[in-house]
Amino acid sequence: MFELVHQSTKSAARVGRIHTPHGIIETPNFVPVATNAAIKAVDAHTLAEVGIQLMFCNTYHLLVHPGADVVQAAGGLHTFMQRNAPIITDSGGFQVFSLAYGSVHSELKSKGTKKHDGCVLKISEEGALFRSYRDGTPIMLTPESSVQAQKALGADIIIPLDELPPYHIGPQALLQSFNRTHRWQERSLIEHKANTANQIMYAVVHGGTDPALRAQSCAILRKLPFDGFSIGGSLGKTRDEMAQVVAATTPHLPAPFPRHLLGIGDLPSIQACIPFGIDTFDSSYPTKCARHGILLTAQGPLNITSSRWKHVHEPVSTAPLCRHYSAAYLHHLFKAHELAAYTLATIHNLDYMMQLMNDYREKILQNQI
Amino acid sequence: MFELVHQSTKSAARVGRIHTPHGIIETPNFVPVATNAAIKAVDAHTLAEVGIQLMFCNTYHLLVHPGADVVQAAGGLHTFMQRNAPIITDSGGFQVFSLAYGSVHSELKSKGTKKHDGCVLKISEEGALFRSYRDGTPIMLTPESSVQAQKALGADIIIPLDELPPYHIGPQALLQSFNRTHRWQERSLIEHKANTANQIMYAVVHGGTDPALRAQSCAILRKLPFDGFSIGGSLGKTRDEMAQVVAATTPHLPAPFPRHLLGIGDLPSIQACIPFGIDTFDSSYPTKCARHGILLTAQGPLNITSSRWKHVHEPVSTAPLCRHYSAAYLHHLFKAHELAAYTLATIHNLDYMMQLMNDYREKILQNQI
Repeated sequence: MFELVHQSTKSAARVGRIHTPHGIIETPNFVPVATNAAIKAVDAHTLAEVGIQLMFCNTYHLLVHPGADVVQAAGGLHTFMQRNAPIITDSGGFQVFSLAYGSVHSELKSKGTKKHDGCVLKISEEGALFRSYRDGTPIMLTPESSVQAQKALGADIIIPLDELPPYHIGPQALLQSFNRTHRWQERSLIEHKANTANQIMYAVVHGGTDPALRAQSCAILRKLPFDGFSIGGSLGKTRDEMAQVVAATTPHLPAPFPRHLLGIGDLPSIQACIPFGIDTFDSSYPTKCARHGILLTAQGPLNITSSRWKHVHEPVSTAPLCRHYSAAYLHHLFKAHELAAYTLATIHNLDYMMQLMNDYREKILQNQI
Repeated sequence: MFELVHQSTKSAARVGRIHTPHGIIETPNFVPVATNAAIKAVDAHTLAEVGIQLMFCNTYHLLVHPGADVVQAAGGLHTFMQRNAPIITDSGGFQVFSLAYGSVHSELKSKGTKKHDGCVLKISEEGALFRSYRDGTPIMLTPESSVQAQKALGADIIIPLDELPPYHIGPQALLQSFNRTHRWQERSLIEHKANTANQIMYAVVHGGTDPALRAQSCAILRKLPFDGFSIGGSLGKTRDEMAQVVAATTPHLPAPFPRHLLGIGDLPSIQACIPFGIDTFDSSYPTKCARHGILLTAQGPLNITSSRWKHVHEPVSTAPLCRHYSAAYLHHLFKAHELAAYTLATIHNLDYMMQLMNDYREKILQNQI
């Protein structure tokens, strides 16, 4: 499934190709997030020309609406959202545990004292029981049910259910969570292997910010027949801590398997982690930026809502669709709160990410990274 | 400019062609509203395949942002918004007088007792002075400045400044307003004729719901060298009253000139007014409906947010772009509040309107209307 095209002589960076039933993903690559089976403000056909090679959908959101059964009856995510290219789904665990413990951000602010247990009813060895935020329906997420849901959704790459411990946790509780997360992943893998259905499954490396635990997690997971590895769990408070975690993890992962960094995709983090041999990055960063009028460019981020663009009658972008419009028009659309602004800016940022990752691949091929 | 293709033998309905520097408008036709030089949720290139023949932009909004000077420096509205087909602008007066008197709706609710004078500083023979809702800048709108603004915007069809009297007005005040509105239109026409700049100007017929005043307005305006006629002012409280006003007006308009009904474009009103010889209708009705999940179809309006569409995995639309997606997916996008829902539904409704108007033209050609 993973074809190593080139290993840089300068760092652990590498160029590869992930083969999936819906096409090839050239790596390193960026993976935009289409939470509800839709990139915000852009439909799949309009986005096609940008050439997104892998797209990330969130199982939790799709379980809540429209339900995995609806997507399955549609013929799976590819048919449902009209995307004829690779898709990856997560287990749904991240959102459930974020609800239970709060986001890392809110947790850091409250130093772990604030409880967010409104929607999560129970977490046990079996799995997590939570309430749908839409209609209050109780939904049980177990390793088996998460994999079954991901089978119904039909993405090319799926992820086992893991437990995400809160950031503020004692060593004893962390070790318990660490052990459970590996048990859950093994259960997920067994469920997956019973009917692989043309899907591949990435393990999720845990161990928080402790290099020894990260190494141990890799040792446990590489013994199991996973098709690739993602790096999850707590990655620390800062970008430096995150980079240290990644640096301490990738050397313990087998080279012939793809490596995904979960939920990280801002530009400095991508730059920091490619030399450690990360192949794919998912993040809502470029699409979220776009909706705030921040356009990513080779000269750095540009705020199109700034009045300096009001009179600039040349295009600001070379991206599909967006290249037809002047900076002044895009500026005007943002100031007038026109929804087309979000569409055009999102296409620009995703096109930029695709170009950026292509540049990284070129540089690695030339051993410049 | 107006080519009468066929006059129905059954009614005053007619099929025509309006020739403009940016192409031909086949009539009867529907004119979508792109208030801020943008159809809400759809950029001009994405909309191109739908084949909108005439689009309506609002001078008032464009004066406030980005300013007529910015649009002029861009090369005019067509270049600014990247629309290579006819555009019509209004004078800006409607919005200013709505601010002064409140909308007809709020006026009817308050029976004329509520005052909305927050933004309008002064209305005199010279014109109307109002404050920008964005930054409080005072803006003077006179017949001359409105035409100058519309010259800067560069639409194919422009409209003279008229005074809109409030609905609850005594006969004496109505007559004063009636006389002033015609003086303002003549001043607008003089300003326009000083430099037509490839634009044509439609008069605005006034007279409220009084058939005699409507006839008198037509008599005044048809003596002036306008290129077409629009029907404005108060059209009454109900659709029946509106139809009566239109019926009492069009017989007094010269046949070889195009006739536009201002701000009316819901489906029953179009059906009611085509037999009176209306050629074009502008309205935000289909685009507003779309954003609420109401899809217009030959079988009547359809609410895509209804759960009956959750499991319908066939396309709901034959419109460009929208036809690729199932009803279930479109339903899901609305329920998940995804912005792409508004884009797809808007394209569907505008495509439906174009088909509907084409059907009307066919029926008139066959003297069925």
